[in-house]
Amino acid sequence: MDDPNIGLIFLSELVGTAMLVLLGCGVVANVVLKGNKGFGGGFLMINFGWGLAVFAGVTVSIYSGAHINPAVTFGLLANSLATGAEYNWAALPAYLGGQFLGAFLGAVLCWLAYKQHFDIEEDPGAKLGTFSTGPGIRNTGWNLITEIIGTFVLVFVVIGFGAQNGTEDGVPAGLAALGALPVALLVVGIGASLGGPTGYAINPARDLGPRIAHAVLPIRGKGDSDWGYSWIPVAGPIIGGVLAGLAAPALIATIAAA
Amino acid sequence: MDDPNIGLIFLSELVGTAMLVLLGCGVVANVVLKGNKGFGGGFLMINFGWGLAVFAGVTVSIYSGAHINPAVTFGLLANSLATGAEYNWAALPAYLGGQFLGAFLGAVLCWLAYKQHFDIEEDPGAKLGTFSTGPGIRNTGWNLITEIIGTFVLVFVVIGFGAQNGTEDGVPAGLAALGALPVALLVVGIGASLGGPTGYAINPARDLGPRIAHAVLPIRGKGDSDWGYSWIPVAGPIIGGVLAGLAAPALIATIAAA
Amino acid sequence: MDDPNIGLIFLSELVGTAMLVLLGCGVVANVVLKGNKGFGGGFLMINFGWGLAVFAGVTVSIYSGAHINPAVTFGLLANSLATGAEYNWAALPAYLGGQFLGAFLGAVLCWLAYKQHFDIEEDPGAKLGTFSTGPGIRNTGWNLITEIIGTFVLVFVVIGFGAQNGTEDGVPAGLAALGALPVALLVVGIGASLGGPTGYAINPARDLGPRIAHAVLPIRGKGDSDWGYSWIPVAGPIIGGVLAGLAAPALIATIAAA
Amino acid sequence: MDDPNIGLIFLSELVGTAMLVLLGCGVVANVVLKGNKGFGGGFLMINFGWGLAVFAGVTVSIYSGAHINPAVTFGLLANSLATGAEYNWAALPAYLGGQFLGAFLGAVLCWLAYKQHFDIEEDPGAKLGTFSTGPGIRNTGWNLITEIIGTFVLVFVVIGFGAQNGTEDGVPAGLAALGALPVALLVVGIGASLGGPTGYAINPARDLGPRIAHAVLPIRGKGDSDWGYSWIPVAGPIIGGVLAGLAAPALIATIAAA
Repeated sequence: MDDPNIGLIFLSELVGTAMLVLLGCGVVANVVLKGNKGFGGGFLMINFGWGLAVFAGVTVSIYSGAHINPAVTFGLLANSLATGAEYNWAALPAYLGGQFLGAFLGAVLCWLAYKQHFDIEEDPGAKLGTFSTGPGIRNTGWNLITEIIGTFVLVFVVIGFGAQNGTEDGVPAGLAALGALPVALLVVGIGASLGGPTGYAINPARDLGPRIAHAVLPIRGKGDSDWGYSWIPVAGPIIGGVLAGLAAPALIATIAAA
Repeated sequence: MDDPNIGLIFLSELVGTAMLVLLGCGVVANVVLKGNKGFGGGFLMINFGWGLAVFAGVTVSIYSGAHINPAVTFGLLANSLATGAEYNWAALPAYLGGQFLGAFLGAVLCWLAYKQHFDIEEDPGAKLGTFSTGPGIRNTGWNLITEIIGTFVLVFVVIGFGAQNGTEDGVPAGLAALGALPVALLVVGIGASLGGPTGYAINPARDLGPRIAHAVLPIRGKGDSDWGYSWIPVAGPIIGGVLAGLAAPALIATIAAA
Repeated sequence: MDDPNIGLIFLSELVGTAMLVLLGCGVVANVVLKGNKGFGGGFLMINFGWGLAVFAGVTVSIYSGAHINPAVTFGLLANSLATGAEYNWAALPAYLGGQFLGAFLGAVLCWLAYKQHFDIEEDPGAKLGTFSTGPGIRNTGWNLITEIIGTFVLVFVVIGFGAQNGTEDGVPAGLAALGALPVALLVVGIGASLGGPTGYAINPARDLGPRIAHAVLPIRGKGDSDWGYSWIPVAGPIIGGVLAGLAAPALIATIAAA
Repeated sequence: MDDPNIGLIFLSELVGTAMLVLLGCGVVANVVLKGNKGFGGGFLMINFGWGLAVFAGVTVSIYSGAHINPAVTFGLLANSLATGAEYNWAALPAYLGGQFLGAFLGAVLCWLAYKQHFDIEEDPGAKLGTFSTGPGIRNTGWNLITEIIGTFVLVFVVIGFGAQNGTEDGVPAGLAALGALPVALLVVGIGASLGGPTGYAINPARDLGPRIAHAVLPIRGKGDSDWGYSWIPVAGPIIGGVLAGLAAPALIATIAAA
C-alpha cells in the first residue's frame, strides 16, 4: 500500500461496514430469535433498525466517504466511466476488501451479542435469516429484479442528488454525499417499500459477509447457508448500482441539455 | 418545446413522481399482499412508507421545485392568480404530464418488484388497494370532504409557510419549498391523522396514474379498477389544493394588514 | 384592537391551534373509530400523530411564536414575572382566545373529516376519546400530578433551552423557540413516556376546545362530555407550565451564579 | 467546591439525567403496567421512548456537555489518558454524583406519574422492569458482553465522531458533541438492534439509580430489587465505554498515520 490513502479507505470502510452489519443483523436477531425483548417486533422495527444502522455506519465511515456497500462503489465507478471523470483504481480493492471484511466482523459481533439466543432458538431458518436475506417466493429472475430496483433507488438518489463532494483526497463520496440522516431515512423507506419480496439486501457485502460468518461460526443447530441463493443478493445490487451510476449522469446530461 | 425549461420540468416531475409512486405503492404491496416480509405491518408502517416516498421523490425532483402532485401545481396556480404574480402557463402541461406519466411508470415498477406476490394473492381488492385508494365507507360527499381537508393541510403548509423560493428559472417551488424532510414528516402526519376514511390520495396523479396502470397491466386475477370512485381522489385534492392556494395569500394579506 | 400585533397574534394562534387539533384529534379518530384504515393502530401511532400535529401547528403559527397552548403562554408569563422582564399584557387575551377558538374549530374539522365513522361507531366513549382526554384510573390528585409532570417537561425544555428569540414585535417565542421538528419529537416522547395514565392533554386548549365541540356538535349517539373531569386537563397543564416558567429562570440563575 | 464550574456540572448532569430517566422509565411503565393507554405497545415504542428521552436529556444538559451517563464520562477519561490530554479531575465526582442522583430523582418522578398503575399491577417483575433492566437469559459472561458491545457502539460513535467540542470551561463534551437529535437516533438504533438480550442499560446511572429508588420507595407489592444482577449493568457499560474511549483515539491515530 504505497498510497497512504488506501489504508485509510480500507480501515474506514471496515469500521463503517462492521457497524452497519452489527446493528443491522442485530435488529433482525432481536425480532426473530426466541427470548429477546424485541421478539415479534415486526417489519417496521426491522426497517428502522437497518436504517439507523446505516446512520451509525455512515457516521463512523466519513473518512472514506462512507460507501460501506459495493453497489455504491460500483455505481460510482460506472458513473466515473460514463462521465469520463478520473477514477482512483488503486482504491477499489481497499473499498471492497474493507466492506466484506467489515461485514464479516460485524456479523461475528452480532453473534456474540446474541449468543445465548442463537443457542436456544430451534429454527435454523431464523438463525440464517439473522445473518443473510432470503426470498419469500424463490425465483431467480423476479428476486433479481426486486434487488435491482431497490438498489437502483438507493444509488440513484445518492449519486444523482447527493452533494457530490469528494473527500479531501479526491475519493468520491458515497452515502456521505447525501448525509447520514437523509440516507438513513432513505434506507428505512426502501426497506418498508421494496423489502417485502427478498428482505432487501441491496448491498452485496451486507449479505455475503454475514453468510460466510454463518458458514464458519460454530452456531448451535444451524442449518445450511443457502449458497444456492447467495449470488442473487450480490449480483442484483451490483447490477442496480451500476444502472444507477449510468442513469444519474444520463439524467443530468439531459437536464443540462434541456 | 421551444422553451428549454419545459423539457427539464417534464423530466424532473416524471422522475420524482415515479419515485414517489414506486415507493408509496410499494409499502402498500408489502403490507397487504400475501407472502411479503412486511405482511400485516399496519397503517403506521404505510404512513412512514408514503412519507419517506415523498422524501425520495422530492429529493430527485428538485430541478422543477418538486411539485410531483397536481394539487400542488393547481394550488400554486391559484396562488399566482390571487396574488397577481406572473405565471408560466407553458409549464403547466409539462408539470401535469410529467406527474401523471411518472405515476404510471412508478406503478409499473412497483408491479414488477412485487410481481410474484400479485400472482399468489387471491383478493382482487388487495391488488387494487396497492395501486389506488378506496374509501372505508363509500359516500361521494363525505369522501370528497375528507380528501379536500387532507390536501388543504398539505398545500396550505407548503405554499403558506415554505421558503417561497422559486427555481432559478422562475418556476414556483412546490414541496421543495418546505424541504424534503419536513414535507415527508408532514405527509406521515396527514396520513396518520386524516388518512383513515379514504386512504389519503391527496394527489390526483398518485391515484389516477396507478389506476390506469392497474387497468392496462396484465395482473393475474385482478378485478375491476373501480372507475366509479376514481374521480373523487382527483377532484377532491384539486379542490383542496386550490382552496389552500387561495387561503394562504389571504392569510398573509390579513397578517400584513394587521 | 388598537395594537396591530394583537390581531396578528390572535390569527396566528387560531390557525396553529386549529391545525394542531385537526391533526391530533384526527389520529385518535383514525385509531379508535370503526371502519378506518388505521383502526387499532396502537398508541405509538397516536404519539407520532400528535407529535407531527405539533410540527404542522408550529410551522403555521410562527408569526406569534407558536404558543398554541395556554400552558406555554402562562409559563412564559410566569417566566417574565420571575425574571422581571417586560410583558405584553395586551397580547394575553389574543393568545388565549386564538388558542381556544382554534382548538374548537380544529375539532369541528376533524369531525367533518371523520363524519361517517362517528356515525357508525357505537361506543360513546370512543367518540369522546377522539375529542378530549380521559384517565385510565380516575383520581383527582394523581391525574393532576401526571398532567403537571408531563406539561412541566414540555414547557421547561422549551422555555429553558429554546433559542429564546422573541418575535420581531417583542412577543416571546413559544414552541417556535425550540423549533418545529425538535418540539414535535419532544411531544412524541412525552406522549410515549408520560401519556399512559391520562392520555396527555398537556394543553388546556387542546382538551377544552374539543370538549366544547363535542358538547355542541350534533354527533350521532354521543354520550355526555365528562365535564366532571374537564377541569383537570385545564388546571394540571397550567400548573405544570407555571412551575416550569418559574423553574427555568431559577435554574439559569443558579447556573449563572455557579 | 472552590471551582465554580463544579456546581454547574453537577446541576446540569442532575437535571439532564433526571429528565432522561423520567422519560425513559416512563415509556416502560406505559407499556408494561396494567391500565395504561400504551399497555402492550411493543419494543419499538420503548426504543423510541428511550431515544427521545435522550433527546430531552441532552437538550437540558448542554451546560455540562451532556454526559448523563457514567460510561460516557469514563470513556472520555480513558480517551484523555490515552491521548495525553489534560483532564479536569475535580469535575469527575460532580459528573458521577449528578448522574446518579439525577437518575434516582427521575425514577421517583416516574413513580409519581404512574403511581396508580404501580398500585394495581400485580406482577412484581413488571414493576422492577420499569425501573431497571434484567436479562432475558441470565448468564454473567454473555450478559456482560452484550452490555459491553452496546455501550461501546454508543461511546465510540460519540467520542470518535462527535464534533469534539469542549464546553467553554474546557469540560469535554459528551453526548452533546454528536448533537441531541443524532444521539437520540443512535440510541433508538442501539436499543432496537442490541437491546434484545439484556434490555440495554448501556448506562450505569440509568440502571443503578432507579434500582435504588425501587429499593427505598414504598411501592405496593414490589418484589426484591434483583441486586444479584445489579453490578452487570454497571460494570458492562463502564468497560464498554472505556474500551471505546481507548479505541477511538487509536483509530484516529491510525488514520492520521495512514
